[in-house]
Amino acid sequence: MPINALSGTKNKGVIKSISSTTFRDGMASLPGAVNIVTTDGVQGQAGFTATAVCSVSDNPPTLLVCLNRRASVHNVFSISTSLVINTLTPEQQHLSNLFGGKANMTERFSSAQWETLVTGSPVLKGAAVSFDCKITNLMSVATHDVIFCEVVAIKQQEQAGALLYFQRQYRELVNTQKDSAS
Amino acid sequence: MPINALSGTKNKGVIKSISSTTFRDGMASLPGAVNIVTTDGVQGQAGFTATAVCSVSDNPPTLLVCLNRRASVHNVFSISTSLVINTLTPEQQHLSNLFGGKANMTERFSSAQWETLVTGSPVLKGAAVSFDCKITNLMSVATHDVIFCEVVAIKQQEQAGALLYFQRQYRELVNTQKDSAS
Repeated sequence: MPINALSGTKNKGVIKSISSTTFRDGMASLPGAVNIVTTDGVQGQAGFTATAVCSVSDNPPTLLVCLNRRASVHNVFSISTSLVINTLTPEQQHLSNLFGGKANMTERFSSAQWETLVTGSPVLKGAAVSFDCKITNLMSVATHDVIFCEVVAIKQQEQAGALLYFQRQYRELVNTQKDSAS
Repeated sequence: MPINALSGTKNKGVIKSISSTTFRDGMASLPGAVNIVTTDGVQGQAGFTATAVCSVSDNPPTLLVCLNRRASVHNVFSISTSLVINTLTPEQQHLSNLFGGKANMTERFSSAQWETLVTGSPVLKGAAVSFDCKITNLMSVATHDVIFCEVVAIKQQEQAGALLYFQRQYRELVNTQKDSAS
């Protein structure tokens, strides 16, 4: 990958034939919060790690999450009516690996503590924030389904830091409001 | 807002009646990269600041960005065929304020340097990464339009840090790969 795009040569850092790899290389420069998205449908509990989570609207409060249709959990989520987006703290990095790997659902869910709020989908104890959501719409785009959902309950630790993924590494973001908020 | 959700009392930190305000309070715990999204349509150049940017697929390389239909720039983007998502470095924080405020488009664009890649939409010089995109689809969800776009060119500074918005403050993420990449 070209670097030093600003060092003088006009075309340095510019790629015009965008493969999956060059796209992923580019996305490495765009940091994302790490979330575990969970549901509890007729096929039981399921969950996966996602950075592709995005706020859509505050009226009604709406989020979206993108899920690969080839993911092992896709079937469960595609027929579910609710999900929870759990935003991880730095201390929960091991759960990101677990829910992003090959572990089965029993292993994944037995590695943390859970509760429920309104919908009954699993809320991760200790998450920075958990958005308990009703799924309202689903749109297939390229390889993924974009799942739109309305937030019906929130559990938040205002003092929590955040876990990020940036340049293919986990990073921690300390909450500088921690002292003043206590 | 409740804090210390884990300090013992079962319902602390839980909110079940979700107003716009409580949703925004919850979203403050989910850090987001700061981007300036630009276009150059028949009505001229337009740009706005967005954290609601999300990767959808790497095949074809697809991103989405959410735009309030009441935003001053909505008309321009709604009839445009291309846009650029420019992910900001910490040094570009002033541009986030400018493109997220009330300044007119002339003021906004005269405050930075621009170039073009494939589509002709404005690429911000010095951005951490710029995704030059064709707009492929648009979906109205609640108050916003979700704009889907396919990436046709990328300009990247692999050594750049990132500008984040977290707990209603700007934060900087240093690129720890800077030394090894040079």
